[in-house]
Amino acid sequence: MHVEIVTIGDELLLGFTVDTNAAQLARELAAAGIEVVRRATVGDEADQIASAVGEALERTGAVITTGGLGPTADDRTKASIAALFGRGMRLDETILDGLRARWAARGWPGELPAANREQAMLPEGARVLVNRHGSAPGVWLEDDRGRWVAMLPGVPREMRGMTADELLPLLGARAGGAAATVIRSRTLRTTGIAESALADRLGDIARSVDGMNVASLPGFEGTDLRITARGLAADAAEAALDAGIARLRERAGPFVYGDGADDLAAVVLDACRDRRFTIAVAESCTGGLLGGRLTAIPGSSDVVLGGVIAYSNAVKEHLLGVPPEVLAAHGAVSEPVALAMAAGVRASLGADVGVSITGVAGPGGGTAEKPVGTVWVAVDVRGRSRAVRPMIVGDRDEIRRRAAQGALDLVRRALADDDR
Amino acid sequence: MHVEIVTIGDELLLGFTVDTNAAQLARELAAAGIEVVRRATVGDEADQIASAVGEALERTGAVITTGGLGPTADDRTKASIAALFGRGMRLDETILDGLRARWAARGWPGELPAANREQAMLPEGARVLVNRHGSAPGVWLEDDRGRWVAMLPGVPREMRGMTADELLPLLGARAGGAAATVIRSRTLRTTGIAESALADRLGDIARSVDGMNVASLPGFEGTDLRITARGLAADAAEAALDAGIARLRERAGPFVYGDGADDLAAVVLDACRDRRFTIAVAESCTGGLLGGRLTAIPGSSDVVLGGVIAYSNAVKEHLLGVPPEVLAAHGAVSEPVALAMAAGVRASLGADVGVSITGVAGPGGGTAEKPVGTVWVAVDVRGRSRAVRPMIVGDRDEIRRRAAQGALDLVRRALADDDR
Repeated sequence: MHVEIVTIGDELLLGFTVDTNAAQLARELAAAGIEVVRRATVGDEADQIASAVGEALERTGAVITTGGLGPTADDRTKASIAALFGRGMRLDETILDGLRARWAARGWPGELPAANREQAMLPEGARVLVNRHGSAPGVWLEDDRGRWVAMLPGVPREMRGMTADELLPLLGARAGGAAATVIRSRTLRTTGIAESALADRLGDIARSVDGMNVASLPGFEGTDLRITARGLAADAAEAALDAGIARLRERAGPFVYGDGADDLAAVVLDACRDRRFTIAVAESCTGGLLGGRLTAIPGSSDVVLGGVIAYSNAVKEHLLGVPPEVLAAHGAVSEPVALAMAAGVRASLGADVGVSITGVAGPGGGTAEKPVGTVWVAVDVRGRSRAVRPMIVGDRDEIRRRAAQGALDLVRRALADDDR
Repeated sequence: MHVEIVTIGDELLLGFTVDTNAAQLARELAAAGIEVVRRATVGDEADQIASAVGEALERTGAVITTGGLGPTADDRTKASIAALFGRGMRLDETILDGLRARWAARGWPGELPAANREQAMLPEGARVLVNRHGSAPGVWLEDDRGRWVAMLPGVPREMRGMTADELLPLLGARAGGAAATVIRSRTLRTTGIAESALADRLGDIARSVDGMNVASLPGFEGTDLRITARGLAADAAEAALDAGIARLRERAGPFVYGDGADDLAAVVLDACRDRRFTIAVAESCTGGLLGGRLTAIPGSSDVVLGGVIAYSNAVKEHLLGVPPEVLAAHGAVSEPVALAMAAGVRASLGADVGVSITGVAGPGGGTAEKPVGTVWVAVDVRGRSRAVRPMIVGDRDEIRRRAAQGALDLVRRALADDDR
């Protein structure tokens, strides 16, 4: 089954909001064997919506829209698409009652705002896609030739919830037993190596492995390798992906930290958990990003004790016990200070593992000897410590994010080497 | 001037990468008076690229692409678009020399990988858009009817740099004095109020003010209000926006924390800096996100001393001095503990302002009395303290991000009230 996605909103087209919905939706559809063949973004104007949705209906006959279902006047999706199908609009009392009940249940003050009443308007002949995650109901509209448009809200959490609750079951039921083949992808995650050097390392399988395309996807956290199987039944696709991933993994070697959507923070937490180790962080230039990465993982509290954000040198001395003479002799961004921070936070919090970051994130603060991008990360595992200086290029945000990733990778490697 | 954007890549279409480039590019173009009228995303196949770019050329005659210029085999943008223009490909020795020099200058091992040589291939008659931020050069291709395609790389940092260095000056020179009118937008940022309640508060100017559309943009950090002036000369547009923003600001009142791209963290840092105050953070459920927000701002080191990530109760006791009997009596997620954390981190780091967060981010850990989403934030300004329990709904990520925003807003309000 092929579909097109049309995301709607001036804020998307003019760039005030990044379109995260289209990516999320495409991933979920692909996992269900449904291929997104084109995506378009248009503004809030009714004629723009009608033209993009109309073209997609002509090409593919199956369209999912996001956005433009909210309570305000710039939300024109339902009316524009109803007009495209030659349908009028009607007030749905059931939806209106639901909106009123939801307002009251949250304890919000006053009556349901008048603006929300618009959300209870539906195209004639439409089916409601129930929204358990917000106020805007979704809409399914289909013509007598079987061409359809599914309208989902633009708020990411609501869109995600409705895709799982309503859209995917509906599309699955439609496809019935006819979907004999699937599109499945598998991703291998690497870090600490440049994209082109990784391609050279992969050699003859850098472009394709066992007939499957290999996509190389560089990002802040490293380079991902993604292979995609198409045109196979589900079992055959899984077997081909297993074999392809194994070949890539062997070539990429120690730079691989996970597959699928593995977050390196989750990999590190699992490695600690396996050893019944606790972890504590000491952060200078990242200011909490490393702690934020680790604690973003649900259930991290059995491993993460906490840490110290040692942005000023005084905090490095008083809360982490970094000797002032070491700071004076080597400067805050140095191997000895990184090691002292890791040991210090481990001791202060009574953790098995201490991990530290100190660096020059810029744009100011760089010197000839220590330019912007100079970062030291260190780890101390029960008294055995090491430090590295990852090669980092980029702006402040990129340097900080790559530094946090480099620190996590150092912990991963230190724990793995301990097992040898 | 109208343009269309085509972003290229299986990883975008299949949703493995979120398309941040399109938003960034659209914002920069709008600021230069160039309107993006449609955006499309296609996969890496040559026919998909040619069809989307060809349709956009027919409609608008001016197309910017991102992606597909990298060193690997799935990078087919240049060849596909050259074919669309009926042009062949040639090796550019100057680009090749530049790639070799760049490789050597970085101290990367060995010779330039063979894969990188592909990046030195150019369509005949093309103009190079110089890339000072990475290895993939951009390309400008134009036909004898004046229709053009500008090809930029997909790596966000490179795309941003080349847009500023090469594309905008080139488009500016093309437009010459003809661009008599501009599109300008202005944004007002609010937090701590539901989108529909904000619309009710705005009343008759919720949808449009002085003839300019008002867009309501809800997000993790609050609801932004954006007004856009079109069809006016630059001076008149600025005057209309000034007046419109002033009217919205008056109605939205204390919920407004800034305009434009103001980050609430930067607003808080400025408020501290004005008073020569330093700040320290104490974070439980956010695990470093608040510190990460504050230190993301360049130059934050004159205000931020650091903080304590007190994920476990032992850290709350030992590093923040939260009395164990308070933890036992009220639980870690409570007003007294939030207040003790804020006071504790202020005392421990010797800061003027202490700010704290404790909450249940989920998915586990909720109870009937303290369900997932229960969060307390507190601030202590030189001994004067207050705490609030922001109303937070969402998943773990959303709860943590909204909690950090709520804590920043509490600091903003506390400092402003101090002035009265």
